[in-house]
Amino acid sequence: MPELVRFGVSMDPALLEKFDQLIAARGYSNRSEALRDLVRAELVRQDWTDDNQPKAATLTIVYDHHHGDLTARLTELQHDYGDEIISTLHVHLDHHNCMEVLVLRGQGSRLRLLADHISSLRGVKHGQLHMTTTGHDLP
Amino acid sequence: MPELVRFGVSMDPALLEKFDQLIAARGYSNRSEALRDLVRAELVRQDWTDDNQPKAATLTIVYDHHHGDLTARLTELQHDYGDEIISTLHVHLDHHNCMEVLVLRGQGSRLRLLADHISSLRGVKHGQLHMTTTGHDLP
Amino acid sequence: MPELVRFGVSMDPALLEKFDQLIAARGYSNRSEALRDLVRAELVRQDWTDDNQPKAATLTIVYDHHHGDLTARLTELQHDYGDEIISTLHVHLDHHNCMEVLVLRGQGSRLRLLADHISSLRGVKHGQLHMTTTGHDLP
Amino acid sequence: MPELVRFGVSMDPALLEKFDQLIAARGYSNRSEALRDLVRAELVRQDWTDDNQPKAATLTIVYDHHHGDLTARLTELQHDYGDEIISTLHVHLDHHNCMEVLVLRGQGSRLRLLADHISSLRGVKHGQLHMTTTGHDLP
Repeated sequence: MPELVRFGVSMDPALLEKFDQLIAARGYSNRSEALRDLVRAELVRQDWTDDNQPKAATLTIVYDHHHGDLTARLTELQHDYGDEIISTLHVHLDHHNCMEVLVLRGQGSRLRLLADHISSLRGVKHGQLHMTTTGHDLP
Repeated sequence: MPELVRFGVSMDPALLEKFDQLIAARGYSNRSEALRDLVRAELVRQDWTDDNQPKAATLTIVYDHHHGDLTARLTELQHDYGDEIISTLHVHLDHHNCMEVLVLRGQGSRLRLLADHISSLRGVKHGQLHMTTTGHDLP
Repeated sequence: MPELVRFGVSMDPALLEKFDQLIAARGYSNRSEALRDLVRAELVRQDWTDDNQPKAATLTIVYDHHHGDLTARLTELQHDYGDEIISTLHVHLDHHNCMEVLVLRGQGSRLRLLADHISSLRGVKHGQLHMTTTGHDLP
Repeated sequence: MPELVRFGVSMDPALLEKFDQLIAARGYSNRSEALRDLVRAELVRQDWTDDNQPKAATLTIVYDHHHGDLTARLTELQHDYGDEIISTLHVHLDHHNCMEVLVLRGQGSRLRLLADHISSLRGVKHGQLHMTTTGHDLP
């Protein structure tokens, strides 16, 4: 790990007090770590606006596995997008409902297409795509 | 304005470089101002999760003013929520479409109710509520 | 207004019951209007992912007007983006805090730039850009 | 599966045309299924505003596993929240970066606390909590 650079930040006392309360509530051990996280989160948000950057994302779906041949069709579709789907986690929510989280990597527009196709399957009750970061360019 | 407090922050050089690029692109004059804005934005996000805090919000609607008695019904509904609606801005987007931005203040759940009622009027094509801050407790 | 097309929709009774409760709570007069609104909202969300479509948006900022020459700089910056800023609404939140809502129209990436430049001004406590629709292609 | 109820919906032709284009692009086989999904998504959004409803959620974190004793501390923290964490998926993004998706169930405010504590650990580059549905009350 490279040596850290140190620089000074000025803040009005009232804002600093609120910030200290916030980071205490969240369990941060010091201000620097909390500020680094805010900076990283902003860099990730910035990346989302650029479709040319490869994205990591999760697609979370909730579905009723009793629904016709849904399980077979889900498997088939996931193979069509084999390049984008890195891994899948399956959770049995109750007797009927399954949650499946797909970890994805690829171009934003392609990931959106994948999410649309899977969410539109009959029996899929809810599907939501969430962009995150590949971490690659994020120190 | 109270005197600013100054404290040291440590960051790895690669993250700092990306941060400096980001704030240059956004037109910040220095790191402290950019970090203060990140802190304030996080405090606002935090506030949104607490319904007991009074909120400021905007409700943006787009509608076709040729639609029946929509204008009259919009006016009437806005009077029902007179305590929450501070002010309204009207923009003629084209021959048919109007945008109206309502600036709101009040309890989050009450603002959501207001937004639901107005957005559900026939002729209102799109309505979206956005929470912001009253600025009051935000140094 | 063109004549409405009528078509049949099938829904399981339990889902329909929840839908009816939702639209009653929101004040819809009938299912068709509620479903049309859901369709329109989805079309607007879809548009946001395409930077080539002209967007309408609001930028909401909260700032302390006592802060140095902020008011002058805000005015200056708004003139630099005269093509994108259609109109502005100003609200005095309290003795210190002002809210200003800018109604914008233009390319998404350009509106983001504008939002960044204004939000990064010193004294602007919070700034948030919200994309909506020009209504133009949204029946 | 209960018998479906059928009811009529009226829509202006231009809106219906755009809707048909949208659902074709997303791979829906018919309008009813697409409308049911829009209804369900709206019911899920509605639920999120009520903290008393138990929520299902995913927490996605990206971190550098070379970072000190982070792996040990992540494990420890996850045990503190054993009641809320149903399952975890781990993906090796590259030599340094790991993504971990935690599937959570519980009260919204408690899930937010969990997310704050884990995201604030040093070495966690990005953390984001996404609420979804338990599916339980969603036909």
